[in-house]
Amino acid sequence: VNTGTSTWQSAGLDQSDLIQFAGDLADVSGAVIRAHFRRHIAVEHKSDRSPVTAADRVTESALRAMITERYPEHGIIGEEHGRERAQSRFQWVIDPIDGTKAFITGLPTFGTLIAFLVDRRPILGVVDMPALGERWIGAHGEATCLGARPCRTSECTALSAASLFATTPAMFGEQERERFEALSTRVSITRFGADCYAYGLLASGFADLVVEADMSPYDYLAAVPVIEGAGGIITDWEGRSIDLDSGPRVVAAANASLHAAAMAVISPRRSEL
Amino acid sequence: VNTGTSTWQSAGLDQSDLIQFAGDLADVSGAVIRAHFRRHIAVEHKSDRSPVTAADRVTESALRAMITERYPEHGIIGEEHGRERAQSRFQWVIDPIDGTKAFITGLPTFGTLIAFLVDRRPILGVVDMPALGERWIGAHGEATCLGARPCRTSECTALSAASLFATTPAMFGEQERERFEALSTRVSITRFGADCYAYGLLASGFADLVVEADMSPYDYLAAVPVIEGAGGIITDWEGRSIDLDSGPRVVAAANASLHAAAMAVISPRRSEL
Repeated sequence: VNTGTSTWQSAGLDQSDLIQFAGDLADVSGAVIRAHFRRHIAVEHKSDRSPVTAADRVTESALRAMITERYPEHGIIGEEHGRERAQSRFQWVIDPIDGTKAFITGLPTFGTLIAFLVDRRPILGVVDMPALGERWIGAHGEATCLGARPCRTSECTALSAASLFATTPAMFGEQERERFEALSTRVSITRFGADCYAYGLLASGFADLVVEADMSPYDYLAAVPVIEGAGGIITDWEGRSIDLDSGPRVVAAANASLHAAAMAVISPRRSEL
Repeated sequence: VNTGTSTWQSAGLDQSDLIQFAGDLADVSGAVIRAHFRRHIAVEHKSDRSPVTAADRVTESALRAMITERYPEHGIIGEEHGRERAQSRFQWVIDPIDGTKAFITGLPTFGTLIAFLVDRRPILGVVDMPALGERWIGAHGEATCLGARPCRTSECTALSAASLFATTPAMFGEQERERFEALSTRVSITRFGADCYAYGLLASGFADLVVEADMSPYDYLAAVPVIEGAGGIITDWEGRSIDLDSGPRVVAAANASLHAAAMAVISPRRSEL
């Protein structure tokens, strides 16, 4: 599954330039977002009833402008402003504020997600927490870093010792919720409300499992290189690797053993979910 | 209900000394806690299955030592080490780490709660977030401050525009959950997982409602002066003011109108909960 550093070379990409540029993007999005945070800005609701603010839109617009200037042939998929150049084999997938509810309510646990994809597979990801000053960058062939330091997932292999994160219990459908609750009863700690921060905490060995449903690709694609480059695993609930065509359900784990243990409880292969 | 500044004078207390001392306590607890945070320390489970770490215990011990040295006649009630001098009319109530699950999993949203009570009523409270660098201090007769600046609750009076916080949906019994979910469907945003941080966010106008059950006095007493000094209201689910003898359920709101609107949905007076 891991296509390694050859992905960059065979696609004619300059790995270090792209990683540097992804960090530049997060510098800009962080500055825009911090200028809006806790400023009581107006909240609107999208057609799916999820909240959105001017900060989401202006942040994504700033990132789109930077990408289009630097890599005019690359495609962009953003939560707020849709797609452009969808036929390119290179795509940037952006969620300017993951955890808008946290952002609105003054909680600093929202983040910005930036993924770079080649042939629909994420090979570079940034999980940036602008109000916390924490940034994870993961890239194929490199160790994931939190800030300047490499990070590693935990060595926890027993469900009974594991911490489990999900954004909200409301994200699960009825049968999904049964499976999630079955998993929840087997772990040490279940936490809600961390949004994308949970992926960073997993990469740094503080969280052990993240199980989510009702997600869109921009919610998890950036997490894939971050988690894999730290020694973790992330798949859908059927165990398939994650790409732009993945569905709404993901399972991330600190290591293969813990992933298998979690999959044995939640995978629909065992229960025809 | 508000006994005002006369509480201090009639009890023979030096208000500014006590407020300064409460801040000194939070400086010490913050330093102890930050020295433990994200250090992979061992987690034990108490008889109620809640997790506890050496950081909880050593932090509370440090605060107890400071209080006993400075105010040897004052009582102390702490989550980890119980009561001493229970007959004193002056009591310090301490939760060294509120949000131990967050602390364990690397999330910086845990806090330290320090309350000072006269005749079982809280007149001084600190909500300190040592990993976030945010501290709310509230005291009878003074405006609550976040850091050096006074803060105010929001002017939101409509449930439909309000944000609602609770620690976890698992804290509600069956009938409580029905009431909470009825409230949740009426508000704009429901958030879980903020622990005591929600009280600070309420005092600063970012959160509008905090509704909790299954709490102990050390979980909410410190929040009372913080919320009241910022213009908010906190009571139990029956609408009674909070003191050391309060039960496990609290409702905090940005203002009286919003409190009344929330109480109309959740108060057991209307439903014989």
